[in-house]
Amino acid sequence: MTHKVLLLPGDGIGPEIAAQAARLLKACQEAGLDIEVEEGLVGGCAYDVHGEPLPAETLEKAKAASAILLGAVGGPKWDKLEDLSKRPEKGLLGLRKNLGLFGNLRPAMLYPQLASASSLKPELVAGLDIMIVRELTGGIYFGQPRGIEVRNGERVGFNTYIYSESEIERIGRVAFEMAQKRGKKLCSVDKANVLEVTILWREVMERLAPEYPDVELSHMYVDNAAMQLVRAPKQFDVVVTGNMFGDILSDAAAMLTGSIGMLPSASLNESGQGMYEPCHGSAPDIAGQNIANPLAMMLSVAMMLRYSLNETAMAERIEAAVGSVLDEGLRTADIASEGTRRVSTVEMGDAVLAAF
Amino acid sequence: MTHKVLLLPGDGIGPEIAAQAARLLKACQEAGLDIEVEEGLVGGCAYDVHGEPLPAETLEKAKAASAILLGAVGGPKWDKLEDLSKRPEKGLLGLRKNLGLFGNLRPAMLYPQLASASSLKPELVAGLDIMIVRELTGGIYFGQPRGIEVRNGERVGFNTYIYSESEIERIGRVAFEMAQKRGKKLCSVDKANVLEVTILWREVMERLAPEYPDVELSHMYVDNAAMQLVRAPKQFDVVVTGNMFGDILSDAAAMLTGSIGMLPSASLNESGQGMYEPCHGSAPDIAGQNIANPLAMMLSVAMMLRYSLNETAMAERIEAAVGSVLDEGLRTADIASEGTRRVSTVEMGDAVLAAF
Ligand SMILES: CC(C)[C@H](C(=O)O)[C@@H](O)C(=O)O
Ligand SMILES: CC(C)[C@H](C(=O)O)[C@@H](O)C(=O)O
Repeated sequence: MTHKVLLLPGDGIGPEIAAQAARLLKACQEAGLDIEVEEGLVGGCAYDVHGEPLPAETLEKAKAASAILLGAVGGPKWDKLEDLSKRPEKGLLGLRKNLGLFGNLRPAMLYPQLASASSLKPELVAGLDIMIVRELTGGIYFGQPRGIEVRNGERVGFNTYIYSESEIERIGRVAFEMAQKRGKKLCSVDKANVLEVTILWREVMERLAPEYPDVELSHMYVDNAAMQLVRAPKQFDVVVTGNMFGDILSDAAAMLTGSIGMLPSASLNESGQGMYEPCHGSAPDIAGQNIANPLAMMLSVAMMLRYSLNETAMAERIEAAVGSVLDEGLRTADIASEGTRRVSTVEMGDAVLAAF
Repeated sequence: MTHKVLLLPGDGIGPEIAAQAARLLKACQEAGLDIEVEEGLVGGCAYDVHGEPLPAETLEKAKAASAILLGAVGGPKWDKLEDLSKRPEKGLLGLRKNLGLFGNLRPAMLYPQLASASSLKPELVAGLDIMIVRELTGGIYFGQPRGIEVRNGERVGFNTYIYSESEIERIGRVAFEMAQKRGKKLCSVDKANVLEVTILWREVMERLAPEYPDVELSHMYVDNAAMQLVRAPKQFDVVVTGNMFGDILSDAAAMLTGSIGMLPSASLNESGQGMYEPCHGSAPDIAGQNIANPLAMMLSVAMMLRYSLNETAMAERIEAAVGSVLDEGLRTADIASEGTRRVSTVEMGDAVLAAF
């Protein structure tokens, strides 16, 4: 069966890195992968053309696809849009919500070749390999009621942090299963000493634990988790948390590696359909200069092959190609260091393709 | 006028470090400071005696005091209390709320003598000096409605993240004024691309800015702030944010110094009354062993002298005493390194008093 893959380049450096992913997809096809690739608009570029960050046409294509590859969305051009619902970010949030992509996998791993890029002392991050499992379609991102209104003569802004047992259970199972496939340690992050919603969160995680007797479950308050990530990040294997805490902690964890330009992510729904994107943003300040790092985007292709298309061998070929390019000493500006060769976005794409 | 100071040792290592603060207060009295010191119970120890983490008697004493010195609250002994309202943390939250201590100042500064304790590379943290201004009596910590209830046949947990314009303005002014006294840079942290409550937050900060023309205001999303703290923490001078984000970011920032056992904090209300406490917790695992670091607690006394009692000179004497003790190479276990002399809690107290 031919899988449909939807490529959404988006804004900023999105189109440049997506172009390298497109070349890689073509190489995979030539190597026998049975996919059909379509493109679409999302984010600011979609707003510019259709007046909507998530046009109906894009959403239809997304629903029909086995997997979506997204570059990045957003930029200063659209930051002043008064109507929040038109902002590029809403295109991304709309895709997550409409496709039910509740399970966000954000690996933070350190490539040994890039150990010196971390701001942490080498011994603290050598071999770092954390998987953050973030709930992506609930919590305070989508909770109702929300808004800004006048109460007692002044404006108040409010949002609702809410989770149901079934939402927590669903993401909990993803995390426990992930831990089973990895180091068998799961740390659930909450703020159960203050927030009722996370008391329920902790309770559901506890209830699931006996079903995964090989996984060691622990709990940590979010403030402590933020500290422990800085102090001793290697204590973590799999971390599971809600949408907001996951947003914060996964970015902190990614930055520990010093090379966020290397990190892909996956967002999955219940039927295994997934959206794959780099952990980094649209970096408008360097857009159009052919200097962005395309590796997180190319590794997102590998993650897609593994999680949505079940093509583990081809995923490994891509990962090996990236590894050998790093071994050769090729570096885009963001990961450059002394004694390495600085290359452009396209040159990095060339090198990965040559090694594939 | 004689100032009343209320000392609340609390739980875990609280009593041990509070004992050193009490000695320091006595030394200040001998040096001419006109204060009267009382003690009281809060947290788990208060629950054990009165069945309440914040007994009425303690609250009365707190209201009557010019300043409160708190050790730390909480511990595993009380973690299983079903009724959240009886947990030690609620004693702390109750004090904050009842006294209106909305302005939480959390400095994260690196003592040059302790530079090697940081997990970050020395060049990234040398000279680090950030002041996090956290709103402490509003936001999701206190928002209504909140709870766990059955909806559509299953339980849901929910909390409300809410701020009014006047609450935002009040903490904004504290932060702008702090920036004026420091490096004149203020970074307001929000998630205005997703949360309405923080759109209002950003708008109010923008509205205040023209009144402080010497301060450069910037905005940052909370996920990016968590990354930037790891990547390049010295870019920050004063950071202002809400209760929840402040909890997370201030702990991460404190940990960057590698010596959270050194950091005091202040929580102020509109009349300048304040509560002062270490940034670290009650560390139940090392309680009763005479090894905890009393310096954050002793520096909390200095912060109290500066912010609530207007005794800048005496505050500086304490800070200088701590500096000279570090210069001499004395270290408690948490900040010990090669070539330094390891001392106990009491010995560290002795040394500060001798240098005072
Ligand atoms: C762009 C933004 C809405 C998004 C989020 O907060 O989820 C991003 O930060 C992310 O983590 O994917
Ligand atoms: C103990 C807890 C309720 C408290 C908080 O979350 O505010 C603590 O983490 C702090 O930062 O002072």
